[in-house]
Amino acid sequence: MILNVLSIVGSVAFAASGAIVAMDEDYDIFGILVLGFITAFAGGMMRNLIVGIPVAAVWHQTGAFIAVLAALGITLVVPGRLLKWGWKLMVYFDALGLSTFAVEGALYAERIHVSAGTVMVAAAMTGAGGGVIRDLLAQRKPLILRSDTYAIWALLAGAVIGLRWVSPHVAWQVYVVLAGTFVLRVLSIVFHWHLPHVESPNRDKAQAVDK
Amino acid sequence: MILNVLSIVGSVAFAASGAIVAMDEDYDIFGILVLGFITAFAGGMMRNLIVGIPVAAVWHQTGAFIAVLAALGITLVVPGRLLKWGWKLMVYFDALGLSTFAVEGALYAERIHVSAGTVMVAAAMTGAGGGVIRDLLAQRKPLILRSDTYAIWALLAGAVIGLRWVSPHVAWQVYVVLAGTFVLRVLSIVFHWHLPHVESPNRDKAQAVDK
Amino acid sequence: MILNVLSIVGSVAFAASGAIVAMDEDYDIFGILVLGFITAFAGGMMRNLIVGIPVAAVWHQTGAFIAVLAALGITLVVPGRLLKWGWKLMVYFDALGLSTFAVEGALYAERIHVSAGTVMVAAAMTGAGGGVIRDLLAQRKPLILRSDTYAIWALLAGAVIGLRWVSPHVAWQVYVVLAGTFVLRVLSIVFHWHLPHVESPNRDKAQAVDK
Repeated sequence: MILNVLSIVGSVAFAASGAIVAMDEDYDIFGILVLGFITAFAGGMMRNLIVGIPVAAVWHQTGAFIAVLAALGITLVVPGRLLKWGWKLMVYFDALGLSTFAVEGALYAERIHVSAGTVMVAAAMTGAGGGVIRDLLAQRKPLILRSDTYAIWALLAGAVIGLRWVSPHVAWQVYVVLAGTFVLRVLSIVFHWHLPHVESPNRDKAQAVDK
Repeated sequence: MILNVLSIVGSVAFAASGAIVAMDEDYDIFGILVLGFITAFAGGMMRNLIVGIPVAAVWHQTGAFIAVLAALGITLVVPGRLLKWGWKLMVYFDALGLSTFAVEGALYAERIHVSAGTVMVAAAMTGAGGGVIRDLLAQRKPLILRSDTYAIWALLAGAVIGLRWVSPHVAWQVYVVLAGTFVLRVLSIVFHWHLPHVESPNRDKAQAVDK
Repeated sequence: MILNVLSIVGSVAFAASGAIVAMDEDYDIFGILVLGFITAFAGGMMRNLIVGIPVAAVWHQTGAFIAVLAALGITLVVPGRLLKWGWKLMVYFDALGLSTFAVEGALYAERIHVSAGTVMVAAAMTGAGGGVIRDLLAQRKPLILRSDTYAIWALLAGAVIGLRWVSPHVAWQVYVVLAGTFVLRVLSIVFHWHLPHVESPNRDKAQAVDK
């Protein structure tokens, strides 16, 4: 029940991030709606596809659909100046979305008895997959592949659930994972945590080929 | 029956648009064939995936496959100078493709008793999805997200069928929807209709992050 | 059995190509891992999706998963200077991956009695699909669509198996197809074979629209 509410909050935060990327790219209002919906729901679809749940199951989230539609409507009619004030809060909503989606994705996968590795991928897919599709549709290099610890926390939540370090059937333990993921995500923003990069063995050659 | 013929005409028009984008990007003849086939069939595949029909059902369209293969063969051997004359007609074939695919997608979705919202998405996916994949494979920002009313008419056709304003089982009503979609698409080209854009609350910041 | 071993070798070669592209794009270590895994496994997933095999079947390749994880781990810790020496061998491993994946994809498709055309697409998808997704996630124009004969040999292997010119149940005939694909791929690298390009009937106009 709480998970349902959080999932709707997360969908709305993800939809808002998609809408803002679309506005940044000067897409029209159709593009804004599409990127909003896709950022909110594509992660769950990809998880379903890869874990082996029917993709069409995504249509059962009626509550989230209505909330996303309402949020995108507000984004389109409220002047950008006012939305600016909401932007600072957005990263927290987005962190809430990430942690809720990751936990939700892990529980989905765990329920059909897949391996711990699959649970981790399902958590990362659900939490971060929508953002990757959003970036591709905006012709950007996916942010999470470049410089962010975003998906790491989703993988971690998946590991904790997939390896049964907590029981997926005990509500408070699930909420502890969710809260931990949220806190780690917020900390990683506050302290600008980044993952290391690696020098390519092949940089010059590859760029020459690319020209 | 008429729907089948129109669907083949639409597939060919979509394949031609894919082939032309591939030529514009200086892809080789394999790339031209791939973009042609993908533009013609990826929309239907994505619709199947999202609506819950087996994706492999796309292989049953033998007629459309042969027509697309023949059309792409012609595109490759006929000199570009001659094809140029066909280009002006192409937008009308493409509009025919959009309206046929949208109606077809809506009927597919309606047949398995999904909600009106799903029927709309299925119509838009079938009509416009192939073009989005085409643009991504050509590393372009998807045209329909930026400046075109393209997908709107597919959504509208989906709404009319999904909400049962017409009966999907009465042929002439289906053809009225198809013709209406076609006319609206052609009007939107002739009169340069565009959807509004929205100023981003976040433009400077987002571009700074992107650098 | 030999096919299993070759398939693991191919997965590792594909994963390495994904990791190197990620390094070239200055992605962080998460991006390197993601591109490595996706290049190795996305082709097979797309083949499953399109041929009608459950996508989740990809999770059964435990051996390949462990090998890819190990290879990516080595790529991350061994200094780029040393990896440079392996790079020249990489094209041969990659050619091995292409031919093994193509044959494997064709056999998968053939087993469920689809048409020869579907077998060809399955072979090309399995052999070249991962590379396309890799290029999209790195925001590059897919190499195989531009200037390489890469996927042609996979299509050819698919045709030979799909049209039953060899029996998919006689091991030595399958290995002949595999070896032939490998040799053709290596020859096409050594002699810089390219497919022809076609002048667009529409180049100036399309570029103007794109601006």
